[in-house]
This record gives sequence, C-alpha cells and structure tokens, in this order.
Amino acid sequence: MSAKKIPYKMYLSEEEMPKTWLNLKAFMPDQHDPFLNPATGKPCTAEELEAVFCTECVEQELNSTDREIEIPADIRNFYKTFRPSPLVRAYFLEEMLKTPAQIYYKFEGNNTSGSHKLNSAAAQAYYAKKQGLTSVTTETGAGQWGTALAMACAFYGLDLKVFMVKTSYEQKPYRKEVMKTYGADVVASPSDTTEAGRKILSEFPGTGGSLGCAIAEAVETAVKTQNCRYVLGSVLDHVLLHQTVIGQESKIALDKYGVQPDVVIGCAGGGSNFGGLIAPFMAEKLQGKNNIDFIGVEPASCPSMSRGKYAYDFCDSAKITPLAKMYTLGCGFMPSPDHAGGLRYHGMSPVVSKLYHDGYMRVRAVKQTEVFAAAEKFARCEGILPAPESSHAIKVAMDEAIKCRETGEKKVILFGLTGTGYFDLAAYKSFNEGTMKDYIPTEEDLARGFASLPRL
Amino acid sequence: MSAKKIPYKMYLSEEEMPKTWLNLKAFMPDQHDPFLNPATGKPCTAEELEAVFCTECVEQELNSTDREIEIPADIRNFYKTFRPSPLVRAYFLEEMLKTPAQIYYKFEGNNTSGSHKLNSAAAQAYYAKKQGLTSVTTETGAGQWGTALAMACAFYGLDLKVFMVKTSYEQKPYRKEVMKTYGADVVASPSDTTEAGRKILSEFPGTGGSLGCAIAEAVETAVKTQNCRYVLGSVLDHVLLHQTVIGQESKIALDKYGVQPDVVIGCAGGGSNFGGLIAPFMAEKLQGKNNIDFIGVEPASCPSMSRGKYAYDFCDSAKITPLAKMYTLGCGFMPSPDHAGGLRYHGMSPVVSKLYHDGYMRVRAVKQTEVFAAAEKFARCEGILPAPESSHAIKVAMDEAIKCRETGEKKVILFGLTGTGYFDLAAYKSFNEGTMKDYIPTEEDLARGFASLPRL
Repeated sequence: MSAKKIPYKMYLSEEEMPKTWLNLKAFMPDQHDPFLNPATGKPCTAEELEAVFCTECVEQELNSTDREIEIPADIRNFYKTFRPSPLVRAYFLEEMLKTPAQIYYKFEGNNTSGSHKLNSAAAQAYYAKKQGLTSVTTETGAGQWGTALAMACAFYGLDLKVFMVKTSYEQKPYRKEVMKTYGADVVASPSDTTEAGRKILSEFPGTGGSLGCAIAEAVETAVKTQNCRYVLGSVLDHVLLHQTVIGQESKIALDKYGVQPDVVIGCAGGGSNFGGLIAPFMAEKLQGKNNIDFIGVEPASCPSMSRGKYAYDFCDSAKITPLAKMYTLGCGFMPSPDHAGGLRYHGMSPVVSKLYHDGYMRVRAVKQTEVFAAAEKFARCEGILPAPESSHAIKVAMDEAIKCRETGEKKVILFGLTGTGYFDLAAYKSFNEGTMKDYIPTEEDLARGFASLPRL
Repeated sequence: MSAKKIPYKMYLSEEEMPKTWLNLKAFMPDQHDPFLNPATGKPCTAEELEAVFCTECVEQELNSTDREIEIPADIRNFYKTFRPSPLVRAYFLEEMLKTPAQIYYKFEGNNTSGSHKLNSAAAQAYYAKKQGLTSVTTETGAGQWGTALAMACAFYGLDLKVFMVKTSYEQKPYRKEVMKTYGADVVASPSDTTEAGRKILSEFPGTGGSLGCAIAEAVETAVKTQNCRYVLGSVLDHVLLHQTVIGQESKIALDKYGVQPDVVIGCAGGGSNFGGLIAPFMAEKLQGKNNIDFIGVEPASCPSMSRGKYAYDFCDSAKITPLAKMYTLGCGFMPSPDHAGGLRYHGMSPVVSKLYHDGYMRVRAVKQTEVFAAAEKFARCEGILPAPESSHAIKVAMDEAIKCRETGEKKVILFGLTGTGYFDLAAYKSFNEGTMKDYIPTEEDLARGFASLPRL
C-alpha cells in the first residue's frame, strides 16, 4: 500500500472521470434469465420493449457482451454539473469508533435531486432527446426519482409528465414544487387522465394511490402519446449500467492512492445503486483478481433477498410489466410502513439477484431503529445528514468497523452514501421522539406475498 | 490570461486550502467607528464584550492591524468535512444567456446547513470549547444559522440552546428536527425560561415571537449560565473574518487559471458572506492593484444600503446590543414579508457599510419576483436549486452578463452562491403559482424606521 497521505475528500479531475459505463453482465459467467412477456410466456423482443422504452436503453438492456459502453459527450457534460462526487475518507467516523479499519464512502447526495438517481435520469433523458422524442413519462413515490428526471428533462429540453402517488403528492407538497420549478407536469395518481387511473378511481374513489397504479398510468400515457416513452429509475439492467459511474469513480480514486477495499457495502432497494457501486470491483472478482466481501443491505421490513424467493415475477404490483427473474417477496407483498421509502420494493435487480444467487455477495437485513441510531452518530461526526436508505449501508459499515476494533484487523471498508435526508425529516422526528417502530414481516406475511407470484 | 482549459468545477486540494483568514480591516485606510455601549455612549471595552462573546472572538472583533489571522488546525480539520467548496464555471448559464462574459460562482451550499453559515459556526464553536465553556446559546429565524451551529457544537462536543422564533418553530417543524438530530436543545421563543421571554409573553400572550426577542433570550441565558457565551451568525467583524475562506478559495482557484474577475457580486443581508467573498479582491483594490466592480445585492423590500442612513444603531430590534455605526433602516424598521428571510435585516456589517460609504463598492436592490425568475432559469441549466438569498446575486450576475452580450465585452463575472433552496419551497410554490408579490417600502415606511434610530 502507498504511503501517500490520503485526503479527507478525493475529487477526480475532469480528465480522470470515466468515459464509459461498465457492463457488469459481460463479466458474469452466467446471465440472468431473460425478461418474459407475461401474455405469451416467451422472452420479450427488442420490439416489444421499444414500444415502451427508448431504443438505445433497450439495446443497453439486452447487451451482455460489450464490457464497456461509451458515455456520450453530451451526457458527460451534464454529469459535470454534479459530478465527480467526492470519495470521502471517514477519518472522524474512524476516530469515533476507535477502529483500526479504514472507512471510505462515496457520497452521491450533493445535487438537487439529493441522490444518485440523476446518473440514470441524465442518460435516459439524453437518449430520449436523441431519438427525437418530445416527452417522457414516469412515476414517483417519495419524489427523488421524479426530481432527478425533472432536472434532466429541463437540461435537455424535454417535456415530462410525472405521476406522483397521491398520498405523497398531498403529504409532500414541496417535493412537487421542486419538480415544477424544473418545468415538470406533476399529476396526482390515480388521475382521470388515463384508463388505468379512471378504473381505480371508480373502484376506490378515496384511494391514496400506489406505485403500481402510478406505473400503470405512466406506461399507458407513454404508449398512447406521440413521440413519448416511459422511463424507469431502478431495477432494469440499463439503469444499473448508468449507475456504474459511482463504482468507477470510487475505484479510480482509490487506485490513485494504492488502496484496495476488503469490504464493499451498499443499500439495495431496486439494486441499481448497489450494482453501480460494486460493478468495477465485482468485475475483477469475477475474473479472480480479488476476493472482496460484497454486502447488500436491505431493510428487515422488506427483505427481498434474505427472505425472498428467486423466481419470475412482475416488476410492479399492477402486473403490467414484463416478468423478471429475481429475488422477490411477490409483487403482492405489502411492505409495512418503513421510512426508507426507496428500499420498500418487493423485488431486486436481476443482475444483483443473479450475483447473490451464484454466491458472489452476501446480504444483511437491518432494523430501522438501529439504522437511524447509526445515521445520527454519522451525522454528528461526519457532518452530512444521510438519507434513511443510505443509512442502511452506514449501519453495516459501522458494524464491520467495530468488528475490526475487536479483532484488530485493519480492513479497508468502502460504502455507498447514496443521498441526503433533507426530505426525510418526518422519519428523523419519530426517531428523535422515540416513537419509531421496527417492522418484521411474519411467515404469514411472506406467504401472502409469495401467493401473488405468477404461475408460469 | 492563461490558455489552460478551465474545468466546470474547481476544487482546491487540501494543501491549497487557506491556512489563515484575511483581516480586511487591516487593509482599509480608515476604520469604521467603534461599537458603543448604549448605556454610557462610550466605546465598548473588550471586558464588556467578553461577558457576552467568546474571548478569542472579541480579540478578532477588535483586531484591525493583523492582515492575516491563523486558522487553528482543529478548525481546518472540521472545514475538511465540507470544504473546499467548488468554484464553478457556469458554462451552461453562459450558453443559455448567449453572453461573451465568463461567469463563475462559488457554491457554499453543499453541506447539511445548506449555506456558508457553517464557516463561522465552526470557528466560534471551536473557540468556545477551547476557552473551556460547556455551552453556547444563539437565536435562529428560518433555521439555517441554528442548524450550522448545531452541527459545529455536535462536532466539538458543546451543548447548544437555540431560541427559535416561535412562528418558524411551528411553521418549519423539520428544521428543528435537523438541529435536534445534531443534539441541540431548541426552544420556541418567547419562552418562559428567561425574564425577557416571560415579559413578552405576559404583554403579548399570543405572539409568534421575533428575532429581536430571540436574541434577548439567548443573550440573557448566556450571561446567566456558568461557562456559557452567546454566538452570533452575521454582522460582526469576526464573523466576516471567518467567511473570508469563501473569497480566498475563490481567488486561489482563479489565480491557478490566470483569471482575474472584473465584477464580483454577492447578496448582502447582515453582510458577512458578501464581505467574506470580496475580502481578498477588495484587499487588492485597497492597495491599488485592481479596479474590480463590487456589487452588493439587497432586496428592494429591505434596502439597508441603497435607501438607509449611515448612523449608529442597535444591531437588534429589542435594543439590547451595543450600537454599531452602519447603514441601517432603523432597528424599528419592519421588513415587509419577503421570502429571502436571510436578507430581512435592518442593518449591515460595519465593515461593508464603511466600504460602501467610502466608495469602494456599489449596491443594487432587486425585486423578489425577478429574483425567482432568475433562480428558475439558473436551476434549469446549472442544476442547483438556489436559496432565495443567493438568487439575488444570480439575478444581478445575469444582468451583467446580458449587458456584455449587448456591448460585446468579455467581462469575467464572479458571484457567490451562498446556499440551496431546499427549505424555501413555500416561496418557490408562490412563484410557480404566480401569487408572489413584490414589496417596496414607501417613504413613510422608511420614515417610521428612521424614527427608531437612537439619539446620541
């Protein structure tokens, strides 16, 4: 290891920033099973996917051979408004924990969307524009993904219609104002602008909506509108591909200082951030060049990998998407109320699922009260107020560092800090007031979720 | 000028970061008049000030001879959690404005307090700890300063009591949760914990409080508590001193690329951020080394410099502080409702006031609807959602760049982007909905304010 002094924050220069995304699939000995058309039970064709998604994204989705895929110069330029993100040596956290371990984190929260989501929003908006589309649609729950896409669409001059789950639309009025400031048209879902929305409204007039319904409305609108496509913020392979800038920047910075991680930790909701963080390190592991301990962290309330099944399932609860082979709790699984909204997803990226299934990584499920306790400690010594999602990784990184204190091991720990918690203060409030609860699904809860799995 | 390609973002390395603050007063041919004790009409002694403020801060307050004051290593270490801040070349804004001007901005918003306030909070908390104090007190309105100080006190292990104006306490419950997460004790002001608070509560039982009352409560608590002092976030000379890291980092980065600004623009509320931004450039101007056009921007609703008087006045509306010689609208001036809370202050830093009075800078007052229109344009092309306060500088920087488009001049424009607008979305909402109004005080409003000036 180099004796070069490691600074608190490492920023790459523009020249050092990655010019290609890393296609992790091209390094995997086995590919995940293909998406299936639920109507025919046969693999989805590119044509079928292109009716919904941008052509270039579909190409990337199906590409499992090219190890590197060029990042167009226009996207790299947009990246320069919020990248490089800092790789931080957590000296103060190490000191607080009295650990011999070295802790690093890649911080993706220093942009107005507040998270890593902008990495893929930038790419997908660019491809939509390049294809000659005039608008795109999407859904958003808590609003981070909608904000990221609104920023990207403003930058490239695309119209955007966001279907926002009605409860969030009403409870988080300010999130919507951010999107509107960037020019997005934000609609509470269910709305009367789509057949799917009208159907739900007539059946359940007072409903607060759901992500499944918002997806259905966004897809329907995209398919029925001229020069329009639908854009998704996680789970799919091309989204994971765009997120590999996270891992690549981390690796380039660490390599400059001769540092090799022993453990790489990330929170895993849909899996795109986790997949993007581990990509370059996992690519080396798949080539036998390292033996890094990869840990995906999920909430105990929604344990897709640790307690889910590896099976074909719908990506959404409305059962309108293609079927993906993944770890899932069943698209009908109802996650109990948990503040880490971005991790409340029944499934997991097919790429990450396959890596887990084949034994290249492990998983930990953690309870939210212990996650917030870790978040608070982190905030007080490292300054940043972390997002609840990101704090899942903080909790496990701290556990690993504490183990090192006990064993004396000088492990190098890298974790992903995906975002800030500025819009999650209701959750911090319940933690500060001691009213936060932990939820762990019972075997019966899981059985009900598994019963919703499609029969093939 | 160098032909070196200028990147989108310039980050200094740790070695390049300033090791001293710049004491602008030591470069000024004339000093501002001293603070006066309102009871005696005589200049405040160090002893009088030390009963309220930390000893080292009082020394800095009264130091007008040392050009540089060392930043202790402990503070420089804390700075590394959120500094260096990026100096950004606004290529996308230039392109949008089709201007031949070069536009740069120094962005101070990438920390959890959301603004530059942390630069002085870090220093003041450190000095309090070093002096052996166990706690400090302060007041906060919108909450940015309180958050910054809470972060600094958490870092150094100091107790903090924040008196938060009751209307903000109730209307912005989440701001308070950030401070609590960092361990601060946040009290709605007026409170029943002080004589000042109890007096107001008995006279006006339903009052929503005021900054003046919160200051009175914080000072009273500091003076009556053992090992405790009061901490202020703007206006005073030592606060401006701490903020000079902004200007120094900017100048070091520009110098590396051989770039010399022609115009330097900042918003001015209490004046510490503006003074800190211009400090190293102004020091050179005072030595005859440049002829930079310095522009302080204030809201038309609270035009302390452009329409105020240069006179002795209280720093607070409760008339408990020393008297400062400054531009002021009168401590009894009631700023009309304006969303840029941080700029709603009746007075102006004595250092900035003196520079303005002596003709070294100019001032522009702008209306908030034009400020938000500029903010929206900026957000859409540069990505960052700016704070309303900072957007005052954006508006004037854009005006200057548009003038260059008309004249063909290739001016170099530098402005300060002090913070993010994530907690100002009610203001963006009223702008988005077209209900935002402009307020300009009438001559009668001003006369009422001037009538509150103390008679000496």
